[in-house]
Amino acid sequence: MEPLSYARTGVDLTHAESVKARIARTIEQTFTSDVLRPLGLFGGIFAAPGTAGELALVATIDSVGTKILVANAWGAHEGIGIDLVHHSANDLLACGATPLFFLDYFAAARLDDRVLEELVRGMTRACRDLGCALIGGETAQLPGIYAPNTYDLAGCMVGVVPTQHIVDGSRIVPGDLVLGLPSNGLHTNGYSLARASLRLTGEPDRDRAILEEVPSWSDRPLAELLLVPHRCYLPLLREAIGSHGLHGMAHITGGGLVDNIARIVPAGCRVEIDARTWDIPDIFREIQRRGAIDTSEMFRVFNMGIGFVVIGEADFIADLQSRLGEGWVIGQVVAAQAPRVVLRYGAEDGAVLTS
Amino acid sequence: MEPLSYARTGVDLTHAESVKARIARTIEQTFTSDVLRPLGLFGGIFAAPGTAGELALVATIDSVGTKILVANAWGAHEGIGIDLVHHSANDLLACGATPLFFLDYFAAARLDDRVLEELVRGMTRACRDLGCALIGGETAQLPGIYAPNTYDLAGCMVGVVPTQHIVDGSRIVPGDLVLGLPSNGLHTNGYSLARASLRLTGEPDRDRAILEEVPSWSDRPLAELLLVPHRCYLPLLREAIGSHGLHGMAHITGGGLVDNIARIVPAGCRVEIDARTWDIPDIFREIQRRGAIDTSEMFRVFNMGIGFVVIGEADFIADLQSRLGEGWVIGQVVAAQAPRVVLRYGAEDGAVLTS
Repeated sequence: MEPLSYARTGVDLTHAESVKARIARTIEQTFTSDVLRPLGLFGGIFAAPGTAGELALVATIDSVGTKILVANAWGAHEGIGIDLVHHSANDLLACGATPLFFLDYFAAARLDDRVLEELVRGMTRACRDLGCALIGGETAQLPGIYAPNTYDLAGCMVGVVPTQHIVDGSRIVPGDLVLGLPSNGLHTNGYSLARASLRLTGEPDRDRAILEEVPSWSDRPLAELLLVPHRCYLPLLREAIGSHGLHGMAHITGGGLVDNIARIVPAGCRVEIDARTWDIPDIFREIQRRGAIDTSEMFRVFNMGIGFVVIGEADFIADLQSRLGEGWVIGQVVAAQAPRVVLRYGAEDGAVLTS
Repeated sequence: MEPLSYARTGVDLTHAESVKARIARTIEQTFTSDVLRPLGLFGGIFAAPGTAGELALVATIDSVGTKILVANAWGAHEGIGIDLVHHSANDLLACGATPLFFLDYFAAARLDDRVLEELVRGMTRACRDLGCALIGGETAQLPGIYAPNTYDLAGCMVGVVPTQHIVDGSRIVPGDLVLGLPSNGLHTNGYSLARASLRLTGEPDRDRAILEEVPSWSDRPLAELLLVPHRCYLPLLREAIGSHGLHGMAHITGGGLVDNIARIVPAGCRVEIDARTWDIPDIFREIQRRGAIDTSEMFRVFNMGIGFVVIGEADFIADLQSRLGEGWVIGQVVAAQAPRVVLRYGAEDGAVLTS
């Protein structure tokens, strides 16, 4: 069997990255002195008006992706609403910000009340738990743009951070340690590859039969394992925001550990991750096995069990780890030139992924 | 020929409105004391952090809709980027706010570089002209969710307004006048009905032939008439923000004059619009004629030549009209119970549309 890859499922990450780099140069023409950081971090950072530079607003826009197609096949959408809010809050958190408000965008060829109400219930629950107000949204019926019987859900979250507590990785120095916090599943990334591997093609009866399978290593059906809502790290890390020893944070989304950590590593530093320091959760092994996917491709596409990363002084990281009672020291920062991130996932010399 | 209606094209506005009302009650469970106004205005209004109540942030999320399908058929996308930014800025303006920053969400089954770069060029140009920073975005490849060879473009804009200058219609009183400002085309609403009327089915060669037609009343092809970028009213009205005589503003989008003005009319007031006070632009007459669409349906779906509405004291409106050198007094405010808006579009008794 030829190994599955993300590009073969119709999602070409490398090409997407080169296009994004080119359009970034165009977009930066709109930057004023109120834009406090360049593009590429987990949120856009903007001087909060009327605060004389004391506060910054952080904003992120994102969508849930093809996890929605699994939710369609299983007929359960509340978790998708939670996914979107938690994903957004994690992006803000990675910049040191806490959420103020959220707006959602729902679009489909045709409005399905039940689906929309489940999504809204999920978003409402997640927002309320985080103290984030859902202040607006748009519901669009766009026949001809969307495939039948599905939808897309995107959202924009705006948060706030004292300007001096903005976390952008610039304070990362050699000697810092990397704490990896456990994910609770795929979160919201890699579903096009996961679906291809599990042979979820969109044919309702066949998809449902596959999703009902209970893997030998679990007591839950595949559907539930795939649809666990994206974990939110804000409750865990809220108190740590503003700590002097906290130098950088990364939300592990599309692009995996390597590409997401690379977004915040300053010149002269390299983050070395050793993937043998934690156990890869079974769901990833199941997806890899069924699709005969290369391990390097797995680490490029999925979070592989680490949903959020905190980088900081050794003492701070040790203290944080003991206070949280979870997470693993998965790597360290060394003085080196490019690549900014090196991930070793096996004993052999070739078992290395770089940014 | 049976007259075309929006519901027949697959977009059911009445049903959508009832669903939206129901979900609004759920969403309001997330509201904190920082949310300064209820849902339903043109933007969500939130107390700006760190300003002791002096400033408010206003946020809106929206998309361009099926105008994108016309852009696909004609192969011109820069205007769609402009559409989205101008639409958003008009929504903020209707609350009295000026833009701070913008984030966009682009999604498609497959990334088309050329299309994306044209959209970004349009958004960048429009943002720069308005002094609005484009601080982030998401580009999603979602095979299975989007129809082939098309895309969706949504965006979130955040602006600011001094709290005491928030415009929400609550100061509207009987005796106020209604100034209608000219649109330059369909803006971004009603394209599903317009496409059905013009028989644009998505078949590339046939669509192109139709879009190349030059109507007798114009010297430009239908494509150009349909794709004129949404007009932005911020440059016109920036100076008027904060005027004491300015009581309400409405951006005329989906739902037309009646439903959009109804969003801001306080209890005890009724806005009476007389559509015989301005000339309906030819493009709307062309769409109506080709689809044999009822006039009431036309006013329900399209802006019909009025893209933005300002309501205020008679002196203020007269002064504004003379300063702008454009616009028509299209109506007045009277003391009355529901309906909040009545639009008369013909001499007969039945030629009336109400909210």
